[in-house]
Amino acid sequence: MDITHLMTSMAQKARTASRLLASASASQKDRALTSMSEGLCAHEEAILRENAKDVALAREKGLSSAMIDRLTLTHKTIKEIAQGLVEVAALPDPVGEVTGMWRRPNGLQVGRMRIPLGVIGFVYESRPNVTVDAAALCLKSGNAVILKGGSEAFHSNMALAEILQESIRTAGLSEDAVQVVPTTDRNAVKELLALEDWIDVIIPRGGEGLIRYVMQHSRIPVLKHYKGVCHVYVDAHADLAKAQEICFNAKVQRPGVCNAMETMLVHEAVANSFLKPMFDDFKAAGVEMRGCPRTRIFFPELQAASEEDWYAEYLDLILAVKIVENMDEALEHIARYGSNHTEAIVTEDYSQAQRFLREVDSSVVLVNASTRFNDGNQLGLGAEIGINTSKLHAFGPMGLTELTTTKFIVYGSGQVRS
Amino acid sequence: MDITHLMTSMAQKARTASRLLASASASQKDRALTSMSEGLCAHEEAILRENAKDVALAREKGLSSAMIDRLTLTHKTIKEIAQGLVEVAALPDPVGEVTGMWRRPNGLQVGRMRIPLGVIGFVYESRPNVTVDAAALCLKSGNAVILKGGSEAFHSNMALAEILQESIRTAGLSEDAVQVVPTTDRNAVKELLALEDWIDVIIPRGGEGLIRYVMQHSRIPVLKHYKGVCHVYVDAHADLAKAQEICFNAKVQRPGVCNAMETMLVHEAVANSFLKPMFDDFKAAGVEMRGCPRTRIFFPELQAASEEDWYAEYLDLILAVKIVENMDEALEHIARYGSNHTEAIVTEDYSQAQRFLREVDSSVVLVNASTRFNDGNQLGLGAEIGINTSKLHAFGPMGLTELTTTKFIVYGSGQVRS
Repeated sequence: MDITHLMTSMAQKARTASRLLASASASQKDRALTSMSEGLCAHEEAILRENAKDVALAREKGLSSAMIDRLTLTHKTIKEIAQGLVEVAALPDPVGEVTGMWRRPNGLQVGRMRIPLGVIGFVYESRPNVTVDAAALCLKSGNAVILKGGSEAFHSNMALAEILQESIRTAGLSEDAVQVVPTTDRNAVKELLALEDWIDVIIPRGGEGLIRYVMQHSRIPVLKHYKGVCHVYVDAHADLAKAQEICFNAKVQRPGVCNAMETMLVHEAVANSFLKPMFDDFKAAGVEMRGCPRTRIFFPELQAASEEDWYAEYLDLILAVKIVENMDEALEHIARYGSNHTEAIVTEDYSQAQRFLREVDSSVVLVNASTRFNDGNQLGLGAEIGINTSKLHAFGPMGLTELTTTKFIVYGSGQVRS
Repeated sequence: MDITHLMTSMAQKARTASRLLASASASQKDRALTSMSEGLCAHEEAILRENAKDVALAREKGLSSAMIDRLTLTHKTIKEIAQGLVEVAALPDPVGEVTGMWRRPNGLQVGRMRIPLGVIGFVYESRPNVTVDAAALCLKSGNAVILKGGSEAFHSNMALAEILQESIRTAGLSEDAVQVVPTTDRNAVKELLALEDWIDVIIPRGGEGLIRYVMQHSRIPVLKHYKGVCHVYVDAHADLAKAQEICFNAKVQRPGVCNAMETMLVHEAVANSFLKPMFDDFKAAGVEMRGCPRTRIFFPELQAASEEDWYAEYLDLILAVKIVENMDEALEHIARYGSNHTEAIVTEDYSQAQRFLREVDSSVVLVNASTRFNDGNQLGLGAEIGINTSKLHAFGPMGLTELTTTKFIVYGSGQVRS
């Protein structure tokens, strides 16, 4: 079967399945999720066997140990994935909720009813657990999904797909609601991105290269972020002990993720007292720092931060540091170099806190807390399928509700327009 | 100045203006709107003079009388446009609203704050009143806007732009918040659609050709609808008097607009009693009807509806009519040929009404009311900038709130992630 035909046929089946899934009851969808969880546990050995093939191929190809690590499934990770499914089943079903209903002067009753988006195309890299997570969130929110994972995880994903589809069938739903693209042909992605008549939204998850590729080729709306160049601004009125703990956490706790701090902005009034102990902590943790000219007056041994450093998403133990004259300069810097992802201020000053919250144009803006909290789970959305830094549809982390939209419903009694 | 340079410079100025406008107070924005209204009235003669140039050119070019009609401004229409500005000023400001705020187990307080989208590119055809309406809605919702109108309205739009910008300056806001593209070069649109770094969303308004052109060339997300193939389904349990009034209104009251009925679906049980008087009304109003084979058994004189008729948005006094066996067939027909725009059912049966509301996948679904109510004003949104039939961002008519998004704001007290 040629690739155009394959992808079109998958998308058409997904569209049909999405119509049925949109009116499935919460209990039916939860039954499918529970059944998926049980299926994973029951077929653990088969999954590990297929996963071992992927890992062996990855070793042959000489992939990095970090990549092999992300690819590898174990008894423990499969248990965690299965547990994740049970947790998604326990979340409330957003579909069917009517938010607000008002009465027009002519007696029409108008409300908004929450409905699934329809068909989601999910394009991602090599973690096989993402296959299951994404399938679960889409199913629970009433959307059919076409999953295109990285070729490195091909065997694992096909094994998972079989189990997921069988479980969905068992629960009495259409197995076409969750389909994994059964090929490693990269053209499959390009074909998928052109199927605007059947797919409502594309969600890519992975490195900036993947996202740019998707953006370039998609005729379908895309929810995505390119990168997270996250800032913490330590204000003149910061509690410096809090600032030290927050900045350390934001940079060091998990440097390879999008909500880690990449640039630290420090008000000049506290630079002297704050930076010395802060840099000691960073050095002890192996963080390489790059400073603006003023920072390097205090710390001449630092490498100078270049223009590129202010734009950089290091995803590593590297940090750019800039001393600013005031909040205006901090806001200006964030507006210029930031990625609309996550920014935090550390301050005890009420007005500065409120101003920062209001003026910073990022999907999550925090006062006195680590940037690492930009995460659907941490913010209380229950789970997340990704983070969107474009303003359209759902700015920020996207949970179940963000995988839905609303339509207007109108109860009339014979009204016509005059 | 070359066109690339011109458009980029406009977009950059719009981006800067959008940052200031985002934190402008409601009273400042309302002052600008009131001042715009006064400016229009004060410069009525100048506007009419420039508009007369456009009308004269349109006549020379031999444009249709309908197009010339849309293009022509009069004392009365300018008064109406000015009044519209006052009405937008009176609407509540959506920006800054915090919708929901919850407390996480670790003490973080998380909420959503409503913010403008940023910079909107608005591409439309030849009605000069749209220039003012769109400028008003964008300004009130805190968005900067770049307006690209049809070349036929060029002189009118430039005259309006001057008045709008002067009024905005008078109110102490940046005039770059509302910019009209000062050229009729069609490449300006193409350039505009490529400026993804400065423009957040494109809203096109016009015929299907314009929308398809925008969709094909845009690298920026687009909120749009291609067409409105709207259905009314007259159920077996319809009150036939209501059905007759609703269908007549949906087809005849204003046939040239997107929420007019294009196909009427009738349950076979009522076809005989309903169609005769209904068709008499339609014939009296000059409606040309095209029927399915079963309809033509009753009315052999009708033209046969072809496959294309079911997909057609006539925007004219033409109607496709199909007799269906049951609601399933009606739903199937709508899913296949519909445009996710507006569908209505006429029925007195409670369960049928509820099922139709739930299962029809359109931006507005109505029971016992005319499709003509799919309109921001009519549904109570206050005003509308357009209708979106893609599911992303805001499905359906878009008012002020739909021109905004939300960011997460987080109040912490030193929280870090463990």
